[in-house]
Amino acid sequence: MIKIALDAMGGDSAPEAPVKGACLAAEKFSDIEIVLVGDEEKLNLLLKKQKNCSSRVSIMHASQSIGMNEAPVQAVKEKKNASINVALDLARAKMVDAVVTAGNTGAFMASALFRLGRIKGVERPAIATIFPSNRGPITLLDMGANIDNSPNQLKQFGEMGSLYSEHILHVNNPKVGLLNIGEEKEKGNALTKAAWDLLKKSKINFSGNVESKEIMNGKVDVVVCDGFVGNLILKFAESLSRKIVDLLREEIKKSFLTKMGAMLLFPAFKALKKIVDYDEFGGAPLLGLNGICIKAHGRSNEKALMNAIRVAKESVQADLVSCIRKFEK
Amino acid sequence: MIKIALDAMGGDSAPEAPVKGACLAAEKFSDIEIVLVGDEEKLNLLLKKQKNCSSRVSIMHASQSIGMNEAPVQAVKEKKNASINVALDLARAKMVDAVVTAGNTGAFMASALFRLGRIKGVERPAIATIFPSNRGPITLLDMGANIDNSPNQLKQFGEMGSLYSEHILHVNNPKVGLLNIGEEKEKGNALTKAAWDLLKKSKINFSGNVESKEIMNGKVDVVVCDGFVGNLILKFAESLSRKIVDLLREEIKKSFLTKMGAMLLFPAFKALKKIVDYDEFGGAPLLGLNGICIKAHGRSNEKALMNAIRVAKESVQADLVSCIRKFEK
Repeated sequence: MIKIALDAMGGDSAPEAPVKGACLAAEKFSDIEIVLVGDEEKLNLLLKKQKNCSSRVSIMHASQSIGMNEAPVQAVKEKKNASINVALDLARAKMVDAVVTAGNTGAFMASALFRLGRIKGVERPAIATIFPSNRGPITLLDMGANIDNSPNQLKQFGEMGSLYSEHILHVNNPKVGLLNIGEEKEKGNALTKAAWDLLKKSKINFSGNVESKEIMNGKVDVVVCDGFVGNLILKFAESLSRKIVDLLREEIKKSFLTKMGAMLLFPAFKALKKIVDYDEFGGAPLLGLNGICIKAHGRSNEKALMNAIRVAKESVQADLVSCIRKFEK
Repeated sequence: MIKIALDAMGGDSAPEAPVKGACLAAEKFSDIEIVLVGDEEKLNLLLKKQKNCSSRVSIMHASQSIGMNEAPVQAVKEKKNASINVALDLARAKMVDAVVTAGNTGAFMASALFRLGRIKGVERPAIATIFPSNRGPITLLDMGANIDNSPNQLKQFGEMGSLYSEHILHVNNPKVGLLNIGEEKEKGNALTKAAWDLLKKSKINFSGNVESKEIMNGKVDVVVCDGFVGNLILKFAESLSRKIVDLLREEIKKSFLTKMGAMLLFPAFKALKKIVDYDEFGGAPLLGLNGICIKAHGRSNEKALMNAIRVAKESVQADLVSCIRKFEK
């Protein structure tokens, strides 16, 4: 049985969405147990409202929680009983195999670093996001765990991303690209130029630079960038996708004919949803930690949280931490 | 009469699109003359094919051209008779008031720097892109003229962007934001932290940091970032938009019903096109040069080039260079 701690107080729709997501996941996957970590009283009430939620969903009390906009390091230090801290305490004590949260990313990383520590040799853990593409899943990292990265850290992101892609996403000999403003070796800023050389010398299947317009094409399986750039691109992609969907929705509402048209186009919109909708993506793994930590999107609904739990379960089954440890060699 | 040189050999659809775009623009705007710069023989043949093209479109011979993938500085130096060089020679000799190209951006900037020079005090010119939003046009810079920028250069981008927004786009007291991974002052990398302080001290209406998810919302009128980040975001936005449109198009083709649906949804798709379609945006001004230089998208068709010519005309009318010179004070 795989044990997963779910931070029930993290994310925009907490604690309702985590409770519902836990019940959904327990129903779907018979080999997992989920511990909801958070305010026991609230969670108990919510859990009772769920019809037939599996007995494999339980509650672990945590008296505090960390808000999305709190300063991460300070909040993690001061709120010892915050749900994310308690969830990671469970992971440190080997009571659970993985931790999932839709809460404050910085707090998750800070608490995980403190409680689980880094894999030996890893300078900085990274957050990887997985995009679907026609040619298979694409792993992008770092998506914002770091701010100013060194060339060697980018090289390590390439190595960790490659291991994740190969062992967890089952991509054969994954191609790794360095995000840059041109394909040629001499393109880019001081950081990417230095990282290029290090990535070239590493043992991974390095394909050189990749432009941002190629990210979605599946030209490479793993895209490496520093956390500042990754965060900007990820958030921009989200807002642009949402703007396009909102615009279509508004226009569709305008008349009977457009509403009819939208009904006929249902299959097309369903396909579109798969691209722009983060519910489907599951969670983003934090790579380089001595434990399995999956970050769900802050806006996660129960379905998105169920998918994040699925990613956690698969990461446990594939022994993610041992996979990333191969990197030491 | 406003005189505009159009590089007829630049861009993916040259020389056909520039010839058609020039004729379109001359028909639409009675106060402009356009000089097509490029291979005289080819251009003459193409021009003859256009029905009733205005006599305000003429040809200036240039025996060479620079490809999209040529190394800019070297190509500009070695090909003295390249169309972009000849077009900028005309601008330097005050024979034309503005230059428009859909060709190699680096070559355009290198040749313009050499032939027109920078406005006094400007460390580095920048490329600005204008996005439409519900709250009015948004100016983003730098979109890739620079790679490693200093904090002071970012400050200058803010000043130039503010002047452009105010004097050319008629935004009243434009709000300027610094692109960053969080809103708080202390967020960001070493570059943005230093730039924040300089922007705060400047005379412009600085609103602090702005996250990438806010770019399209019109929260600020001018968004400042270094050219590396700007280029990555711009190209990613393009590819994502195109992917969404391609996907919808493919799905729509699949059945009679979805085709019907798409017909009924025509107004919605037209609105979508306005967001994702670069034809509508016109051109991107190169700010900080002693002359008016407008870069059209490499994939520009005749309509996009006509819009770039419109931007050039409006920039001449508003005396763009004098506006940006105000920055010295």
